[in-house]
Amino acid sequence: MDKNTAYEKALKLHKENKGKLEVISKVPVKTKEDLAIAYTPGVAAPCLEIKEKPELCYEYTTKGNTVCVLSDGSAILGLGNIGPLAGLPVMEGKAILMKELAGIDSFPLCIDTQDTEEIIKTCKYIAPTFGAINLEDISAPRCVEIERRLIDELDIPVFHDDQHGTAIIVGSALINVCRLTKRKLEDMKIVISGTGAAGSSIARHLTRLGAKTIYAYNIDGVVSREKYASYDFLIKELLDGGIYQSPALGEKTLADILKGADVFIGVSAPNLVTSEMVASMNSNPIVFAMANPNPEITPDEAKKGGAYIVGTGRSDYPNQINNCLAFPGIFRGALDAKATKITEDMKISASYALAHVLSDDELSPDNIVPKFSDERVVKAVSNAVKETAIKTGFVRK
Amino acid sequence: MDKNTAYEKALKLHKENKGKLEVISKVPVKTKEDLAIAYTPGVAAPCLEIKEKPELCYEYTTKGNTVCVLSDGSAILGLGNIGPLAGLPVMEGKAILMKELAGIDSFPLCIDTQDTEEIIKTCKYIAPTFGAINLEDISAPRCVEIERRLIDELDIPVFHDDQHGTAIIVGSALINVCRLTKRKLEDMKIVISGTGAAGSSIARHLTRLGAKTIYAYNIDGVVSREKYASYDFLIKELLDGGIYQSPALGEKTLADILKGADVFIGVSAPNLVTSEMVASMNSNPIVFAMANPNPEITPDEAKKGGAYIVGTGRSDYPNQINNCLAFPGIFRGALDAKATKITEDMKISASYALAHVLSDDELSPDNIVPKFSDERVVKAVSNAVKETAIKTGFVRK
Repeated sequence: MDKNTAYEKALKLHKENKGKLEVISKVPVKTKEDLAIAYTPGVAAPCLEIKEKPELCYEYTTKGNTVCVLSDGSAILGLGNIGPLAGLPVMEGKAILMKELAGIDSFPLCIDTQDTEEIIKTCKYIAPTFGAINLEDISAPRCVEIERRLIDELDIPVFHDDQHGTAIIVGSALINVCRLTKRKLEDMKIVISGTGAAGSSIARHLTRLGAKTIYAYNIDGVVSREKYASYDFLIKELLDGGIYQSPALGEKTLADILKGADVFIGVSAPNLVTSEMVASMNSNPIVFAMANPNPEITPDEAKKGGAYIVGTGRSDYPNQINNCLAFPGIFRGALDAKATKITEDMKISASYALAHVLSDDELSPDNIVPKFSDERVVKAVSNAVKETAIKTGFVRK
Repeated sequence: MDKNTAYEKALKLHKENKGKLEVISKVPVKTKEDLAIAYTPGVAAPCLEIKEKPELCYEYTTKGNTVCVLSDGSAILGLGNIGPLAGLPVMEGKAILMKELAGIDSFPLCIDTQDTEEIIKTCKYIAPTFGAINLEDISAPRCVEIERRLIDELDIPVFHDDQHGTAIIVGSALINVCRLTKRKLEDMKIVISGTGAAGSSIARHLTRLGAKTIYAYNIDGVVSREKYASYDFLIKELLDGGIYQSPALGEKTLADILKGADVFIGVSAPNLVTSEMVASMNSNPIVFAMANPNPEITPDEAKKGGAYIVGTGRSDYPNQINNCLAFPGIFRGALDAKATKITEDMKISASYALAHVLSDDELSPDNIVPKFSDERVVKAVSNAVKETAIKTGFVRK
């Protein structure tokens, strides 16, 4: 589908349906008897039970199956800070995907503040209604601070999908690259373009999966210890932790650090990479160019440069790195386990589970990640997350 | 249904269904083509249109048909301050009634703060997602302050049902009493027991409908100018406005002020009124005893005292003053008109519309208010509210 067609079709779909989601009743309320048990006076019964034993809210209400998709509208898709109202269609989209893919009741909240402390407070205020909170499209580095504080201060899972969703899928893709090519993550030189929410989470996650050599690039050039003072806390943290390598003297451009690299991961901007740059990488290079809607290099150009495996964020090329592969199963698993947090261990198990949805026989350069519509995906990811939550003890008592 | 049966049945219903509401998709998301128009990249289209022209959120999202039912858990039913978690079953119940009775998508938010300013701020933050906000079960007199501030400061309707819902229905019931008995509201001596959210709103609303003689009673006795300094701002306001009459010297008890009264309205506590007190009222007295679940006087006792018309909050007696008669139609009308506020004029038109659902032929002492399941109710109330909103200009441009 070309862009104009998608644009027109999307407007038509949204207008005809006046949005995408609907809230319905699971119980009848036709007669006064119905009313007496679903509403007053009967509803006092579950209220009083929950008052005595708060955990019963997981039995008597929808809390345990409900996820809030919350955004402040500050970083909507690649559209930037378009505000909460204009961000609503994205959050509705995410909410219906939760339901369609994982059976989760999900409600969008686009909030009218972009103040970090106020966002944190609002999330804490609304938490009683929800089993988990999916933070979405909040600009970096605030999004990281908000998520960390909420993970610490709330007793329900809080997960910022823009950070970890992509990281988990890229992790699973590289696990499958290793399976297919008999390489090891620790031996690979990895270059990440983009040091915001997604880029920094990818670097952290790949390190936990075994990667040892990661270079980073952003709009100000190659990330380097020399420029430490100019960075935000996200980059500083990863330099301090030895996760971002500092380049050799004289390596100043993306082209410089791509020489000899095994993997390019782009979560940045269109057209940063040329086929010549791909040709300068190690043999059989791997290119995940995920800027949306226009990637850092098109799959055709990447192939021209000799790329062995190419992935993008787009549905019209093979190997779509699509967040729908991760978040539905992750929240399903967290809710099923009554997890209190979504931990690093759970994210790692999600990457392995997602990778192993594809059998050895199914793996190929054009089939490194499963399709979002593959029914095995949510099942595998949610089971892995649930089991890890239980095994590691991050569940409600 | 007796109380124990309702209690057990309600627990079973809530447990079997794990709550009462569900969020579903109105559009398909099965294929990658579906995904491309409901989510990325197509979803950018409505986002950009709304960014250019914010009013288009009423075309492209669910905002225009979505009502938030928001509570802080401070005054849940007659159960008191049981907190946000324990209040959730009530808010879910209200949300599904919105859908079942008026086709409104409604989502419950039970929030974890009981601070007036924080509640106001939270409502303002979440407002972009909603077409209107229904405040619910927030304790008095804070609830009045919260509602007034939000009506002033937000551009979507905010309506505190505990205040106005009962007032609108009692107003319609008295309109029908006048039709049936050929009396006039301005000639009636009305006694209201309860001076909180509901009682004060009833007094204000009946005054707007023409009532001139209202006495009030609360836990501290008959409301009187002598005790002015001890009252909260709600009572002071109504005394200052000449809405609450001050009793004659020596009238100190509820029994004293009920002597010769035409109407008793109870939104207070069980068993405050005896059949002897009803017998002391004017001929053919009207008794609306709405304390829940146990009224100020049972219908049987009231009849024993000579009550001509009796109404309660209960479904097992005639004339159930049930908030379901008002809020679904009021929000339906406000949303249909794209109203910016729910004004006094709209509430008055709602009372008249609700009253006139019943034809002269249908009116009888046991049929002063329609049944909540009567399909004419929502239609009549919503049309009246919508027309008044448009006529008086309180609609989005």
